[in-house]
Amino acid sequence: MIRPAELIERKRDGGELAPEEIAELVLGYARDEVPDYQLAAFLMAVYFRGLTSAETFALTGAMIRSGDTIDLGAELGRKVVDKHSTGGVGDKTSLAVGPVVAACGVPFGKMSGRGLGHTGGTLDKLESIPGFQVELPHERFVAQVRELGLAIIGQTADLVPADKRLYALRDVTATVENVSLIAASIMSKKLAAGADAIVLDVKVGDGAFMKTLGEARRLAETMGELGRHAGREVVCLLSDMDQPLGRAVGNALEVREAVATLRGEGPADFEQLVVTASAHLLALSDLGLDLDEGTRRVRAAIGDGSALALYERWIAAQGGDPSEDALPRAPVVREVVAEQEGYVSRLGAIAVGGSALRLGAGRRTKDDSIDHSVGVVCRLKRGDAVGRGAVLAEIHARDDASAQDAARGVLAAYEIGDEPPRARPLILDTIV
Amino acid sequence: MIRPAELIERKRDGGELAPEEIAELVLGYARDEVPDYQLAAFLMAVYFRGLTSAETFALTGAMIRSGDTIDLGAELGRKVVDKHSTGGVGDKTSLAVGPVVAACGVPFGKMSGRGLGHTGGTLDKLESIPGFQVELPHERFVAQVRELGLAIIGQTADLVPADKRLYALRDVTATVENVSLIAASIMSKKLAAGADAIVLDVKVGDGAFMKTLGEARRLAETMGELGRHAGREVVCLLSDMDQPLGRAVGNALEVREAVATLRGEGPADFEQLVVTASAHLLALSDLGLDLDEGTRRVRAAIGDGSALALYERWIAAQGGDPSEDALPRAPVVREVVAEQEGYVSRLGAIAVGGSALRLGAGRRTKDDSIDHSVGVVCRLKRGDAVGRGAVLAEIHARDDASAQDAARGVLAAYEIGDEPPRARPLILDTIV
Repeated sequence: MIRPAELIERKRDGGELAPEEIAELVLGYARDEVPDYQLAAFLMAVYFRGLTSAETFALTGAMIRSGDTIDLGAELGRKVVDKHSTGGVGDKTSLAVGPVVAACGVPFGKMSGRGLGHTGGTLDKLESIPGFQVELPHERFVAQVRELGLAIIGQTADLVPADKRLYALRDVTATVENVSLIAASIMSKKLAAGADAIVLDVKVGDGAFMKTLGEARRLAETMGELGRHAGREVVCLLSDMDQPLGRAVGNALEVREAVATLRGEGPADFEQLVVTASAHLLALSDLGLDLDEGTRRVRAAIGDGSALALYERWIAAQGGDPSEDALPRAPVVREVVAEQEGYVSRLGAIAVGGSALRLGAGRRTKDDSIDHSVGVVCRLKRGDAVGRGAVLAEIHARDDASAQDAARGVLAAYEIGDEPPRARPLILDTIV
Repeated sequence: MIRPAELIERKRDGGELAPEEIAELVLGYARDEVPDYQLAAFLMAVYFRGLTSAETFALTGAMIRSGDTIDLGAELGRKVVDKHSTGGVGDKTSLAVGPVVAACGVPFGKMSGRGLGHTGGTLDKLESIPGFQVELPHERFVAQVRELGLAIIGQTADLVPADKRLYALRDVTATVENVSLIAASIMSKKLAAGADAIVLDVKVGDGAFMKTLGEARRLAETMGELGRHAGREVVCLLSDMDQPLGRAVGNALEVREAVATLRGEGPADFEQLVVTASAHLLALSDLGLDLDEGTRRVRAAIGDGSALALYERWIAAQGGDPSEDALPRAPVVREVVAEQEGYVSRLGAIAVGGSALRLGAGRRTKDDSIDHSVGVVCRLKRGDAVGRGAVLAEIHARDDASAQDAARGVLAAYEIGDEPPRARPLILDTIV
């Protein structure tokens, strides 16, 4: 066995490691045979030198081998599709996509994560629904997907345990922001969970990991390579995260917005993303239809109420109360009023996300608790006209002091110009 | 207090840390408050981004503050000089320089280290002398320097403990080779040991840390800056380590060569380095003389036997037997015979050092034990004419098998050409 220090040195000097050498480091670390300080130095060397495609395949494969894998398709006897977002502000897409594709007859069994920092997590949003259970025994998870077509649960501890350890180490050693490491982390979990086809929503902009279209494209291409290398179909959407997605940022507020969208009353940008992602999932499924037919069926499921009905059955199946009245409401609601007229030229996603975080909607560290009721609703978004004294946003807070602080932050997130800004599409690119 | 991860990130992105931030990381690590994986990631970021002068000052200062300091000058009531080599193959300079400068009336109290890999350590060489004690209580160390003018002992554990921990971490994380980190490591120990003026011998070439004159000059300049910043005088010699220094490589063999040099019978290159380093130390001392007068006095101390007499008193004072017959001899001595005629165009230092290491003269890991008797004597060196069947070197080994292995390695270290190579001076530069 080669000494880890020699492998670190080779990567530091720009060399390539063999697949078994990558596995030695990662699985050695997962088994407590390679100490964390050597992994940390290796990760920083990777930050500066990158990983080749072959190294990224090897890293992903080693992470998958660190734990159990699931073959949901074999258990259901059907082709299984999955969806993943790289995370942003106001991203409640899975809450609406799940019911839509299940209503169209495609089984959707998904494992989700929690949020950290200004990005929210699907599990946290679901937990704002009273009674909702995010942990189901494997058999119940499979049975619910088979019978209802839909289940969303927390990632089990024995699925890719190396990723959990590696991510925790990256988080405290400033080695998160590397395309290969991000791609391997995401794809190892998707591949271990057994999806046959995956729609990836790579967020781009101020509120996303990837700040530029170029970086996002590199991540999308790397994830696509990893998926195809493992014999899966992958479609990547690159979508705008320069402003929050939809209007609502905050757990219960986002659930409300997802439900409104299933009723056909959602904000245009969010609805577009839900329809597009769902249509791609249908086109990748075993229904044997193309993207146009997928889009038609998705719109029909929203239009005829079947998606909303499926949402209600799903929430109830996991112990939750699907009625909107059951969702918690913040005691203080305060409006943010424009100080000038014009057009919203920019609405900073990270500033809105940060305000929601400070209100208590998110976690600064893993051990923070969340207030599910609080958050921000952006009534006006980029390109909207701002009249005299217009309400830009609502703050939902637990007290006046935090509402005032958030109002200041959200007001500063709005840039008002004299002219409408250049249009920026929601979906910036689609990589098949 | 700023989170260590933010400091790592700032260095990773090419930013500069404030002195108190550097101290927070290094002293936090020494106190077990900052975990080793964060230091490891920081060190790798430093490897890629470097440290500014201010950061290097701060690192050195923090390391000094991690432990005790010594003020030998105050205890002796005299200006104290010290010497340090960055390490190479066959470097026994301190063994001869100490007696020479002490014989000239300049007190020389030095703390030395052990060797690792192909570079030897002064302590290991001294321990090949039967009975020699490298550990003295502080009071006896000071008394011996006062009365005899000379003591060389091991570095005490409470002098710059942060350096010991940091070096051990760098060794296993491929973060040794950085000029700022090397300079801070060396100079923190010299400054904590209280020298007023320091002669630094920076080795350059195949057998040294610094492979090129440019790198060596950068290290010399950085160490000079650190010394002057702390109010000390520093002279740097850049000396050749493309071939072994002198002829002998191996602990007892090197002691013999140092003694021969004190008798005026040493190899020309080694004698030149001893005279030059000693003359600089005299010129920096409180004797108030210049380099020419220093050189004259050094030559006189070697010529009149006073340096050799002082060597013998010194060895006896630390419990050793100064007679050459007391030194251990290897049971097997084997000659390496030239396979062609010509001139030695190259004699690889690292190859000779590696052969000596495999014979047992050095340690691969910190816990290896050393055979003090074994090693290599290079009879011919770069530029020497090689006649038919000439003896290039002698192998001193503990058995035939290891002698044969070493003979192969040493033969391969010699390159024989038709023409004499271009002359390369021993002392490549002097930086004052």
